[in-house]
Amino acid sequence: MSKKNSQILKNTNAELLDLFNASIMFDKKLYSQDIRGSIAHSKMLALQNIITVEEQNQIEKGLLQVLNEIESGEFKFSLEYEDIHMAVENRLTEIIGDAGKRLHTARSRNDQVCTDFTLYVQEKTKSIQSQIKELISTFVDLASKHTTTLMPGMTHLQHAQPINFGYHMMAYANMFKRDFERFGSSFERNNYSPLGSAALAGTPHNIDRFKTAELLGFYGPTQNAMDSVSNRDFALELLFNISTTMMHISRISEELILWSSYEFRFVRMSDMYATTSSIMPQKKNPDVPELLRGKTGRVYGNLISLLTVMKSLPLAYNKDTQEDKEGVFDSVETIEISLSILNEVIKTMIVNVENMANACKIGHLTATDLADYLVQKQNMPFREAYYLTKEVVEKANSLNKDISELNINEIRTSSNELANIDEEIVSYLSLKNSMNSRNSFGGTSTLETEKQVEGFKNWLKSEK
Amino acid sequence: MSKKNSQILKNTNAELLDLFNASIMFDKKLYSQDIRGSIAHSKMLALQNIITVEEQNQIEKGLLQVLNEIESGEFKFSLEYEDIHMAVENRLTEIIGDAGKRLHTARSRNDQVCTDFTLYVQEKTKSIQSQIKELISTFVDLASKHTTTLMPGMTHLQHAQPINFGYHMMAYANMFKRDFERFGSSFERNNYSPLGSAALAGTPHNIDRFKTAELLGFYGPTQNAMDSVSNRDFALELLFNISTTMMHISRISEELILWSSYEFRFVRMSDMYATTSSIMPQKKNPDVPELLRGKTGRVYGNLISLLTVMKSLPLAYNKDTQEDKEGVFDSVETIEISLSILNEVIKTMIVNVENMANACKIGHLTATDLADYLVQKQNMPFREAYYLTKEVVEKANSLNKDISELNINEIRTSSNELANIDEEIVSYLSLKNSMNSRNSFGGTSTLETEKQVEGFKNWLKSEK
Amino acid sequence: MSKKNSQILKNTNAELLDLFNASIMFDKKLYSQDIRGSIAHSKMLALQNIITVEEQNQIEKGLLQVLNEIESGEFKFSLEYEDIHMAVENRLTEIIGDAGKRLHTARSRNDQVCTDFTLYVQEKTKSIQSQIKELISTFVDLASKHTTTLMPGMTHLQHAQPINFGYHMMAYANMFKRDFERFGSSFERNNYSPLGSAALAGTPHNIDRFKTAELLGFYGPTQNAMDSVSNRDFALELLFNISTTMMHISRISEELILWSSYEFRFVRMSDMYATTSSIMPQKKNPDVPELLRGKTGRVYGNLISLLTVMKSLPLAYNKDTQEDKEGVFDSVETIEISLSILNEVIKTMIVNVENMANACKIGHLTATDLADYLVQKQNMPFREAYYLTKEVVEKANSLNKDISELNINEIRTSSNELANIDEEIVSYLSLKNSMNSRNSFGGTSTLETEKQVEGFKNWLKSEK
Amino acid sequence: MSKKNSQILKNTNAELLDLFNASIMFDKKLYSQDIRGSIAHSKMLALQNIITVEEQNQIEKGLLQVLNEIESGEFKFSLEYEDIHMAVENRLTEIIGDAGKRLHTARSRNDQVCTDFTLYVQEKTKSIQSQIKELISTFVDLASKHTTTLMPGMTHLQHAQPINFGYHMMAYANMFKRDFERFGSSFERNNYSPLGSAALAGTPHNIDRFKTAELLGFYGPTQNAMDSVSNRDFALELLFNISTTMMHISRISEELILWSSYEFRFVRMSDMYATTSSIMPQKKNPDVPELLRGKTGRVYGNLISLLTVMKSLPLAYNKDTQEDKEGVFDSVETIEISLSILNEVIKTMIVNVENMANACKIGHLTATDLADYLVQKQNMPFREAYYLTKEVVEKANSLNKDISELNINEIRTSSNELANIDEEIVSYLSLKNSMNSRNSFGGTSTLETEKQVEGFKNWLKSEK
Repeated sequence: MSKKNSQILKNTNAELLDLFNASIMFDKKLYSQDIRGSIAHSKMLALQNIITVEEQNQIEKGLLQVLNEIESGEFKFSLEYEDIHMAVENRLTEIIGDAGKRLHTARSRNDQVCTDFTLYVQEKTKSIQSQIKELISTFVDLASKHTTTLMPGMTHLQHAQPINFGYHMMAYANMFKRDFERFGSSFERNNYSPLGSAALAGTPHNIDRFKTAELLGFYGPTQNAMDSVSNRDFALELLFNISTTMMHISRISEELILWSSYEFRFVRMSDMYATTSSIMPQKKNPDVPELLRGKTGRVYGNLISLLTVMKSLPLAYNKDTQEDKEGVFDSVETIEISLSILNEVIKTMIVNVENMANACKIGHLTATDLADYLVQKQNMPFREAYYLTKEVVEKANSLNKDISELNINEIRTSSNELANIDEEIVSYLSLKNSMNSRNSFGGTSTLETEKQVEGFKNWLKSEK
Repeated sequence: MSKKNSQILKNTNAELLDLFNASIMFDKKLYSQDIRGSIAHSKMLALQNIITVEEQNQIEKGLLQVLNEIESGEFKFSLEYEDIHMAVENRLTEIIGDAGKRLHTARSRNDQVCTDFTLYVQEKTKSIQSQIKELISTFVDLASKHTTTLMPGMTHLQHAQPINFGYHMMAYANMFKRDFERFGSSFERNNYSPLGSAALAGTPHNIDRFKTAELLGFYGPTQNAMDSVSNRDFALELLFNISTTMMHISRISEELILWSSYEFRFVRMSDMYATTSSIMPQKKNPDVPELLRGKTGRVYGNLISLLTVMKSLPLAYNKDTQEDKEGVFDSVETIEISLSILNEVIKTMIVNVENMANACKIGHLTATDLADYLVQKQNMPFREAYYLTKEVVEKANSLNKDISELNINEIRTSSNELANIDEEIVSYLSLKNSMNSRNSFGGTSTLETEKQVEGFKNWLKSEK
Repeated sequence: MSKKNSQILKNTNAELLDLFNASIMFDKKLYSQDIRGSIAHSKMLALQNIITVEEQNQIEKGLLQVLNEIESGEFKFSLEYEDIHMAVENRLTEIIGDAGKRLHTARSRNDQVCTDFTLYVQEKTKSIQSQIKELISTFVDLASKHTTTLMPGMTHLQHAQPINFGYHMMAYANMFKRDFERFGSSFERNNYSPLGSAALAGTPHNIDRFKTAELLGFYGPTQNAMDSVSNRDFALELLFNISTTMMHISRISEELILWSSYEFRFVRMSDMYATTSSIMPQKKNPDVPELLRGKTGRVYGNLISLLTVMKSLPLAYNKDTQEDKEGVFDSVETIEISLSILNEVIKTMIVNVENMANACKIGHLTATDLADYLVQKQNMPFREAYYLTKEVVEKANSLNKDISELNINEIRTSSNELANIDEEIVSYLSLKNSMNSRNSFGGTSTLETEKQVEGFKNWLKSEK
Repeated sequence: MSKKNSQILKNTNAELLDLFNASIMFDKKLYSQDIRGSIAHSKMLALQNIITVEEQNQIEKGLLQVLNEIESGEFKFSLEYEDIHMAVENRLTEIIGDAGKRLHTARSRNDQVCTDFTLYVQEKTKSIQSQIKELISTFVDLASKHTTTLMPGMTHLQHAQPINFGYHMMAYANMFKRDFERFGSSFERNNYSPLGSAALAGTPHNIDRFKTAELLGFYGPTQNAMDSVSNRDFALELLFNISTTMMHISRISEELILWSSYEFRFVRMSDMYATTSSIMPQKKNPDVPELLRGKTGRVYGNLISLLTVMKSLPLAYNKDTQEDKEGVFDSVETIEISLSILNEVIKTMIVNVENMANACKIGHLTATDLADYLVQKQNMPFREAYYLTKEVVEKANSLNKDISELNINEIRTSSNELANIDEEIVSYLSLKNSMNSRNSFGGTSTLETEKQVEGFKNWLKSEK
């Protein structure tokens, strides 16, 4: 039995209970938000003549000292003060005496915790957004170098049509841009201050919630105190936004794992991001993308955890909501490190252009081009062209060639109906032509890909 | 063994496989989106001279006939045409002949299914939004009638402070307003057309994706075809938005169940929404809110299902994503009926004003008012006032009274430090005064509640 | 808007409510369990002289007629009788008159629904077990044919050590055997009859719960009526057991998809189980394993749904639990069809022995053998042998050879410390020898694999 | 921004990567299992003459020293040795030199981590079982004191029938007994040793896996090495078993919260387990059961996390599975402390017998008894009796009485059909008689409850 656990079972009941009830061991992470919130609150109390200016000065100075003590590691967190709010306030009162007690005027732990947590969520939303933008920038840079690099575009993990590697990278740039926007709209929707909601019903003190909202960078105060203290929508949105982003990360990770295999060899992880086996000296393992892929599980779990916690809670505050934080902290740290690491992995990986090009010669990637040619040039209904193309594919198979390698005679003899097909068809079936022919908006042609890259570069600049 | 199931096991392999692969039995729900999408596509093809105007006319007329056959119940869906796209196109070709086959030019089932599904999700997003607005309106109406109706505001399911029932209802109005906005921002973010993305890489045909986007009510085409055919973010957002809304529904449902109990009797469900027992003739059961609460489970499940499906799928299209629809359909139908039913339940329930008022006399709801009074009028630090209040509460308990029922002598003799407290304290401790004293922005006072109600009424008007 | 949905919104309130409350549209699937339960109940009532033998005869005959009407499709299910219990009982009373009403003596819908549902879950548990056994048998048969078929054993999707394909198949046989056992232990734990628990507290009638338990194939009655009517553990276990099995199915499916790719080509799906593209005529897509993989999502979702429903429900029966069935039905049907289909896919797939063998020559699969040789024969510590092996791998790379292809000189010149290594090392590094050398219990050698196959064949026989 | 996090973003890439890849910071919890496993492995190696007896002695002594260093806090865990296996082996080699390196002979980190983790899961399964048994014992003790304590049995949170409080407690005893058994059957199914599976294919060394299995308390070795290193079923089972138990805990918690409310007042938490408000001095909050209820969320989340991780992983080992441990550790610690705390809460709570008895007089709890009387004594079909009972309930309501308080005249005048009902009906409708009349097996009568209690006491004894 591990020591910590066996200890759990041997604790006295009182110790156990403290351990169970207290949130200090995880909500201490909110110390800076808590202190910022308290400074703003004290400023407002002074402006409203609820405390004196001198008291406010003392409080602010004291709080900054506490902040300093915490950041320097001097501060001792103990289970005795069960949460960060009590811990800070208690230390403040030790430092400045009675004035410290006035700080709790016109607020409650219920609105205080919401304020701290909202501040945290909003800050993290912004910093995750900027990490996502960096990652997009990495994809865009890589894409811009590979707009002519042929690779087999796949559906069902089967070769389908020739694309360029830059285009594939831009698919991810697009995905992560949606993520960027999703975080952004959550920020906008949730940027309101619960401070001053007090326990559940507001307060008889003559406070100014617009002022504290402004001081803390919120757009304004929330509308209903009862809703405010029991609301965790902002945290759920963060967990969902992280889950969706992490799902996207799991998709590029899956592809990196596939592409690193002996079978594909489309890319090679930088040695830094590939690890070795303790028993098989010859191996390079794509541990990093595997771990990125695996970490999807925990952020999904954190989302379902909070959804479960909130289900059928009566208004207003219930202690259950203390369970809101650890999952959010974990998801935030997971996405932060994952975005950083993925960014480096993409930046440093070696793209094996030759292997990708060779792979394009397997699977008759330009078969659809033949069908499209017949539709466009010979005005054939698509369904008919489709069946005719099948015959040419069979011919190529019988010759042990790819359709892109057939000469005009081989094509013409595939089917009676193709006996007179124009010689230009040969170039239509070349891989590069095929890729470039898909030049509809959002298509894979080098030109369209370059336009996409350009558009993203402009967007990245404008967002700064 | 149920018949359908035993049948599953007895089917021939070929039948089983059709049953397994085909989506027609559920994606037929997308028939109208599929036909709208095809009409728009055909119009664009004609404008771009890819098909003739006459062909387009034939196609459109044929599609409208198919629509009509489906809506009249005449159309026979069969596993043979494995999805709605094939079923419609096949019937179209039966009706109009070869021109029908031209419709598939420059598109693929991969972008077609995305287009249909996006259209569905966007339509439902809008209609759910309007149901939510109706529900908010019901809460606002009820609130406007009860801004002076005292009830015990609770935290931890314990009486905490006196509030008014209108204020409690406005907490829900605020919650559902956030839901309304969340659906709205998903609509904005996802209102782009994947049509024309083709299989994964665009098409060599000279199509105009801006035109089809416009015809279908989208803001424009999506940027990258490969991302477009493998993107299901819009569906995940809908599932998350529904989950959050349903979580809110589970909270009001929990309260309705509690309030309907013999112990609370704060409200009574209309007889229509309370059902009887098959064995206990005297019972009225709050089945409807129980079922609303229970239905939270399925929408959470649908969210986790699609997150699981999407995890680590390589680009571009994979058959796994066929699993995206049933959960979305189920969540949509669940939220639609739940919002309708909840709206009726709230509209028709009887509010037991007297019982709520009586409940306020239990639990010393105005204890905080005493503390606040001491802080405000006697400039006492909050923490001291808090401990003094405890003594008055103990006195009241010893007299078997509520703190709101104490006279001035009883208060003054509670503690030496209160011996000279002003007589006005008695009125401060009255329930109604207490409630009205919480007049900070977003607080429970009648005046503040009325302002909230007014604000919501204006918002409801402006959104029409 | 789809028709059904728009209809939802247009229904009258009363119709909506019926639709919302009624379970008949899905719990009708329990008709046979309901009728079996009622027949057993009536037999017991007669044995206890609570009804007469003649009444029992009438009831049983009537119930069998109802059964017949349902199975022949004659029976009309309507929302009016909100669940299968009411629907059956009502029809019974139409057929046999007043005696029908006596059937409900000493039971309640609360215990009736539990009984029906437990019977369903137990039956399905057994039938799923027998499907799993069939699948295991398929893996064992396939394995027995391939105990000498070399393939690269992988970790991290990188070639690691040579194994035989039969051994890989036996890994799945082992997984699914655990599933078989897990279902079995759930069956044992949950095979107790809730019938006679009545509403929540038992009944004053002189019933014999042991008798009904026996008649229905249960081991005995449950112990506490209140627990019995609010217990859904048996359904949760089924959902978890299905989830775990489906997760295993997703793993073999992932491998089948990989192995079917152009890059691997280790297996080929039978044409029946590979489908074609609507736009790319040359493609064969592994739709079936993709769909199997995707269906994991829905069974995970169903599990989380019921866990959510059950969370914090007070005792005893609550209407929320009506939400228990659809998810279970869906998971059961999903696993049934998935097991059937997977079984066929495995049975009919073509194993490409040659490609697997060729793949073994990539990645220095026998590198560990060199390390092991040095440890065993030269008594070198493993960590040293490991580093020496790395040098040989580098040598092989420089020669563009696989380590299994090196001759004795090439090995000896890789490192000073290997200058005198015995010639036998060459055969140690051959792929076949390497595979066969791993002959520890549970290892990959042909002999050990054959023993495993034999053990499983005996187990399969003994379980019949 | 919190310090730790901002630090994450400022780290060098190499540090970040170590942080990302390493598991040492959480898998160090497995140190004792790792050392036990290594000792057993070394013993077997010596018995098989793979290492010498002297080497084994050195290794064992060295490992015990490492154990001692870890338990005394002397050992410094560092990211450098990325997991517990490397950290221990490295320290061992520092202590005993080259012999330490021989320990890794014939095993791999892949089987080592499985062995450690299986040992952990099995130990925890046993210790959780014994905590559950203690909790059951607490419920049984409490039940044995309250087999005559009347309380209103509820369905739909509405008074339904009179039961005794002991009976209600026994419902929980039954639930948790199923949990005990579920953990037990997982233990049995999973008690097999993966040690010696090596990387994925077994080993050429002449090891004895039966011996190491025996030394570690397993029933024997696992059957297939490839399955063994990629199997996490045992961890999933633990997570599911904990989820189900925690769901049961959430149900009793919900009831404790309800019962502690002013509206119910059926129980009072011991002061130790009820906390006070920072703003409302009069409040006692049931924080502990609320937190117990809330903690259900995290264990559900951990289950879905690992299910997600395992979905569609190809064989054999992948780094994703490193994500298996944190969730399991968290769920284990959650259930351990939850079971301890709940046990104390139940043991120390005050049962308010009088309030429960009074509550029985509300809601016509004995209405079903009238119906049952008419069925039994007057041979009336149940459905008729049901409607007649409704009339008596209406009569009682009109008299403002409970049906249990009606006299014979009041009953007889309720309906023409009751004009001659025997006087004995009055006693039939008394609460105590009603409760005792439900004496079917598993029913609520005092006698039946006592039998249940007795049965459980015997079971508890026999399990020791």
